[in-house]
Amino acid sequence: MRLSRYFLPVLKETPAEAQIASHRLMLRAGMIRQASAGIYSWLPLGFKVLRRLEDIVHEEQIRAGHIPMLMPTLQSADLWRESGRYDDYGQEMLRITDRHNRDMLYGPTNEELITDIFRSTVNSYKELPKTLYHIQWKFRDEIRPRFGVMRGREFYMKDGYSFDIDEASAIHAYNRHMVSYLRTYERMGLQAIPMKADTGPIGGDYSHEFLVLADTGESEVFYDRSVTDLSLGDRSVDFDNVAECQAIVDEFTAPYARTDETHDEALFEAEVPADRRKSARGIEVGQIFYFGTKYSEALGAEVVMPDGSRKPVEMGSHGIGVSRLVGALIEANHDENGIIWPEGVTPFRVGIVNLRQGDTDTDAACDKLYADLTAAGLDPLYDDREERAGAKFATMDLIGLPWRITVGPRGLKEGKVELTSRRTGESELLTPADALARCADIYAGL
Amino acid sequence: MRLSRYFLPVLKETPAEAQIASHRLMLRAGMIRQASAGIYSWLPLGFKVLRRLEDIVHEEQIRAGHIPMLMPTLQSADLWRESGRYDDYGQEMLRITDRHNRDMLYGPTNEELITDIFRSTVNSYKELPKTLYHIQWKFRDEIRPRFGVMRGREFYMKDGYSFDIDEASAIHAYNRHMVSYLRTYERMGLQAIPMKADTGPIGGDYSHEFLVLADTGESEVFYDRSVTDLSLGDRSVDFDNVAECQAIVDEFTAPYARTDETHDEALFEAEVPADRRKSARGIEVGQIFYFGTKYSEALGAEVVMPDGSRKPVEMGSHGIGVSRLVGALIEANHDENGIIWPEGVTPFRVGIVNLRQGDTDTDAACDKLYADLTAAGLDPLYDDREERAGAKFATMDLIGLPWRITVGPRGLKEGKVELTSRRTGESELLTPADALARCADIYAGL
Repeated sequence: MRLSRYFLPVLKETPAEAQIASHRLMLRAGMIRQASAGIYSWLPLGFKVLRRLEDIVHEEQIRAGHIPMLMPTLQSADLWRESGRYDDYGQEMLRITDRHNRDMLYGPTNEELITDIFRSTVNSYKELPKTLYHIQWKFRDEIRPRFGVMRGREFYMKDGYSFDIDEASAIHAYNRHMVSYLRTYERMGLQAIPMKADTGPIGGDYSHEFLVLADTGESEVFYDRSVTDLSLGDRSVDFDNVAECQAIVDEFTAPYARTDETHDEALFEAEVPADRRKSARGIEVGQIFYFGTKYSEALGAEVVMPDGSRKPVEMGSHGIGVSRLVGALIEANHDENGIIWPEGVTPFRVGIVNLRQGDTDTDAACDKLYADLTAAGLDPLYDDREERAGAKFATMDLIGLPWRITVGPRGLKEGKVELTSRRTGESELLTPADALARCADIYAGL
Repeated sequence: MRLSRYFLPVLKETPAEAQIASHRLMLRAGMIRQASAGIYSWLPLGFKVLRRLEDIVHEEQIRAGHIPMLMPTLQSADLWRESGRYDDYGQEMLRITDRHNRDMLYGPTNEELITDIFRSTVNSYKELPKTLYHIQWKFRDEIRPRFGVMRGREFYMKDGYSFDIDEASAIHAYNRHMVSYLRTYERMGLQAIPMKADTGPIGGDYSHEFLVLADTGESEVFYDRSVTDLSLGDRSVDFDNVAECQAIVDEFTAPYARTDETHDEALFEAEVPADRRKSARGIEVGQIFYFGTKYSEALGAEVVMPDGSRKPVEMGSHGIGVSRLVGALIEANHDENGIIWPEGVTPFRVGIVNLRQGDTDTDAACDKLYADLTAAGLDPLYDDREERAGAKFATMDLIGLPWRITVGPRGLKEGKVELTSRRTGESELLTPADALARCADIYAGL
């Protein structure tokens, strides 16, 4: 993309209403714009990141054997009355009346609707297990929305629902989700620690939240610092293998890690040596639940067993806050000059800065680099504006592309361009072909 | 995908409430399920088609130089009061009051919101032209929703907005959209004829609708049958080339083609020889508008010109009904046994039917074919259920995959499988390797 043709309305001023880094930087970098309180338009750069995260979530869910579908944003109130949650949700649920005076609502979650689909289409134990999920806009009418997309009212979430015949199978579904979520966050360049959690209004017996450590996190977290050494890395996982998934879950949940809601100081001191005990702030980016038959009993979601009896199915639900993750990624990856995208989620892979726009040789070198990077799938953003070098560097630093190639007449005299890492600030002089090869290496497999 | 692991709740009975083929077949093929009046859940097979159409729309919009972003579903009523459309929309607009008693609405379209973004971020003529678009859920509170996704209340639409400095540039944007829409529909295997249209509540002077011929269409259309001979085919189009885009628009709009709203019988008879005059029914699948300064004046979207004066920008808007297209595709492509997907949009590219599930050799041949087709990117759906052949064929015919490979013990004795076209019903006996090669050829470039 040539910047002269793009729509990237960066702001010079820091917006007064933004209290945290991700909100400030998303506004300044032209990623979002508030449409009304807690509701945002995703401008092209922000949408590109959101879509990238959505793609990663889809790929990892499909890899784990889960099936994508899509439920609507608006739901009938009737199902929520049937489950008994219509009143529980209070004023956070956006209630709507249509032209025929029917009670509707903007879905904050989808347990009722998916259970209704299940009960009307699945009859036999033979059709289990199944995990269905979707990524859809949700609404929660927060009394005081703030922190940009971190606590908005209209937000984008992946929510999945598992249906199993018995507890053992349901626990495997739970484990499969934990492993697929760990993979998802790692691909995004995030370390998200699974922490034992309360179940809240979803209900159930067994739940983990995934928390990203960041000073602006809403939760206080307590953990054994050995947990931050864990990673899945390149392990290939067979998601059908019950023992393999269980072993990974055991590995990642063995070290103490809890939020303030479930923290037990005595247990913490008993289990974790003093020098490994850490407390910090964390941002919640996902949560998984196993809640047994709570909804299947309330809504009559049963299957016929081999002996002809009917049994309510065992259910779990599993959520990733996709729009919130954009904010969490920035909270965990920025400096005073702007965002620093991990390679796995960057909106453009390489930035090109032309130091002398209008100079025939420099323009030609940039055009060739742009064409070559594009052909190599390295999706460059070429700053071809008539601007001073300082303004171009400031924009690149603000929007946070991990790699920048600077092209100027002085370097070109030696046949060289400069490749700079946004994270370390280190630069190298390379031929354009070598710079391209280095970028191709960096992004190989991403 | 193995069917035993998928979620494909096909119906044997024809649902009584469905009056037209696409609604009936989408329910029967397990593509959608009604959540409430005019609001549907997209089950996995339906979602896969919807997502495929969305991807094609994105690819063709980006190819034409248009920039993707995403506006929210809910909007503040204030902007609509400013443009004067809050009252025009009447009861079809779903009006919502939030917990702070602020008036909101579920967006039926986005002229106001995009113009607000534009006026607060773009200042200079140098930043034009720009075309921004998004694909987002919309809501229109139809008094009597019907025909499934063809006239639902919650629907998925691509809407784009162009901003230009003068009429000539705005007409090029209009033409660029017409050409990119023609490409989009052709890739989906649809012939959509551009017809001169009324502008309706969007306003403006200049508009075309795109209509797919189908007996169940809501509009009566009148056209010179020479228009149905036109196609873009493999032409590569330079979307920056004003003359080239204009020539294509001239070519496709020269033959008479109008809906009942703009039809002029005298003109029709004067322009078109009797043997080429046709009337038929058509389904609207898109519309483009050039409306000049209607919204930019109402909302103060101006740019500073070279001489320092301020000028309201010239605007257009352009829509493709993405969820409605799924229905239109089926209306134009089905027979008494089910859907017949064009190759460009099929949810799975090849179906595999195992005639003797449980037989070691047949299962092994199917497993190998499944692995090989998957590796070749031919995304197979393997019916591995313990079902009679007749039931498997009926399911494949109903869901409409364009190509089916049937594997049975008799054929395997000769080293052959059967490749069958859903559209023609013709079959060929081939080795598995040849069948795969044929499918790879068919889908090359799609």
